[in-house]
Amino acid sequence: MNYVPLTIADVRAAAGRIAPFVRRTPVITDEQLNELLGAEVYFKCENLQRGGSFKLRGASNAVRSLADDVAARGVATHSSGNHGAALALAARLRGTPAYVVMPENSAAVKIEAVRQCGAEIVFCKPGRIAREAALERLLSERSLEVVHPYDDDRVICGQGTAALELLEAQPKLDVVMAPVGGGGLISGTAIAVKGVKPDIEVIGVEPAQADDAYRSFHSGERVLLDAPETIADGLRASLGVRNFAIIRRQVDNIVRVTEGGIVQSVRLVLQRLKLLIEPSAAVAVAALVERRMEIKGRRIGVILSGGNIDLGAATWLTGDER
Amino acid sequence: MNYVPLTIADVRAAAGRIAPFVRRTPVITDEQLNELLGAEVYFKCENLQRGGSFKLRGASNAVRSLADDVAARGVATHSSGNHGAALALAARLRGTPAYVVMPENSAAVKIEAVRQCGAEIVFCKPGRIAREAALERLLSERSLEVVHPYDDDRVICGQGTAALELLEAQPKLDVVMAPVGGGGLISGTAIAVKGVKPDIEVIGVEPAQADDAYRSFHSGERVLLDAPETIADGLRASLGVRNFAIIRRQVDNIVRVTEGGIVQSVRLVLQRLKLLIEPSAAVAVAALVERRMEIKGRRIGVILSGGNIDLGAATWLTGDER
Repeated sequence: MNYVPLTIADVRAAAGRIAPFVRRTPVITDEQLNELLGAEVYFKCENLQRGGSFKLRGASNAVRSLADDVAARGVATHSSGNHGAALALAARLRGTPAYVVMPENSAAVKIEAVRQCGAEIVFCKPGRIAREAALERLLSERSLEVVHPYDDDRVICGQGTAALELLEAQPKLDVVMAPVGGGGLISGTAIAVKGVKPDIEVIGVEPAQADDAYRSFHSGERVLLDAPETIADGLRASLGVRNFAIIRRQVDNIVRVTEGGIVQSVRLVLQRLKLLIEPSAAVAVAALVERRMEIKGRRIGVILSGGNIDLGAATWLTGDER
Repeated sequence: MNYVPLTIADVRAAAGRIAPFVRRTPVITDEQLNELLGAEVYFKCENLQRGGSFKLRGASNAVRSLADDVAARGVATHSSGNHGAALALAARLRGTPAYVVMPENSAAVKIEAVRQCGAEIVFCKPGRIAREAALERLLSERSLEVVHPYDDDRVICGQGTAALELLEAQPKLDVVMAPVGGGGLISGTAIAVKGVKPDIEVIGVEPAQADDAYRSFHSGERVLLDAPETIADGLRASLGVRNFAIIRRQVDNIVRVTEGGIVQSVRLVLQRLKLLIEPSAAVAVAALVERRMEIKGRRIGVILSGGNIDLGAATWLTGDER
């Protein structure tokens, strides 16, 4: 790809643009957990973000970057998860129509979340091809601005604002960690962190069962996986092109964690920090619990990316550990 | 009783005294939940306090009020819940020995929490009489300063600092609500709120199955209940003497909620706010959910008092609603 690399200035511009619409989420540390882990860990609580995930940052930056006439026509995306609801909310806050293509087998709570934000849902058959066809059909009927969930500069810069706030709250960090799905959060995080202080390590974390970014990072070639299965449903997406380019340049390492470690970490954060996080957010915690890197005595920032769990289906969260 | 009434100045003094040792917990509001409830609700997140409950405020104020020679000898209390661990932590932070009398059938997690803070645990048979006898025996052996869980001016003023911070974060409130167990939190809250702005209503909330404060408030006589049963285990304590005196003078109303409403509210806060609260903290939310008072269009501050739940035993928190 041949484009001007994004810089910290772009992330700062995004921060100014979205400030009225997103929450400045708290950064939390807990002495007892620190003792347990043997490190000083600072959690940036994007699970407490409006809509329950960091996704509103990127979506808001995209929607707020549009010229008035473009915004008036509307935005579109495909998403079965947090990005769809976030784009719907960001659009509503600007009075922009939003269209979200969702597989017809999406979880009822996720459909409801998008609908509550006033977006029009376009259902499609499950699978990438059907989803892209549905979006193409929609775009042939209406002139809409597509906002990709992660392979989009505006989205990447928006996501980077979480790390910017984390560093403002706690500048003395040795490492910043974030989950990797399509790569929107980790690439924005890397631009922000390296722009503020290049010697802070940036580490991405993936489920071992959906390790496309790990394989891509370590092989130097963008690897795509076919429908990986993991409890971290937000991390099943394929690594984006822009995202991979940024990761190669600015991320220091990508590590992998087990499914058991993810479940254990959701419970640990709930029990100790009193915070509900979704499995996708727990991978970075699992990397600490499973010692996937050197953590002893270090100051580590962790972006807790979201907290959208359907409690009705989350019986693994309570009762005896399995 | 005949003593000089506590004032906002005492609460402010406590705030200054404990500031280095407690967290200034966040105040959270959520548009979607507000829409659902038809009110603007601001949650003061004491579940995110060190030790997982507001109790560290009162315990710290008590420990930090001691003369050096008294502090050097140590503090003692009886508690099967959050106060014991909070006093242990507050004492450790001052280098003061702490002794906590606990029933031998206390939950293992609670015993562990007190022990982790370095306090010496004195086990006793279950029940008020055995507990008081054990404390008396301890005091006959050692010269210790007793810090009652709630019927203590220093504790009351410390607990009031949560409301003070809530009002600093969000001064425009019509109502402030807090749970009522022994009355430490609600009495401190009332002193703080009425001292800052007397026309803000202060409402206490109790489980209908442990409604000693409700009965006392509405009859004008301190009513004691014998071993009330409620899922809100922190609210089974009997209303204190000092606390009742303050409640009569400065609390506007006490309302009651059902056990089902409490469970539903723990789940609601977890699902919507991504925060784990304990059933004792959920009563104030349940009062909103069950419309136990006029809430429409009002700005309501709710003190989420704590988040200490044993997930292993909390299967009611996930799965289908019962």
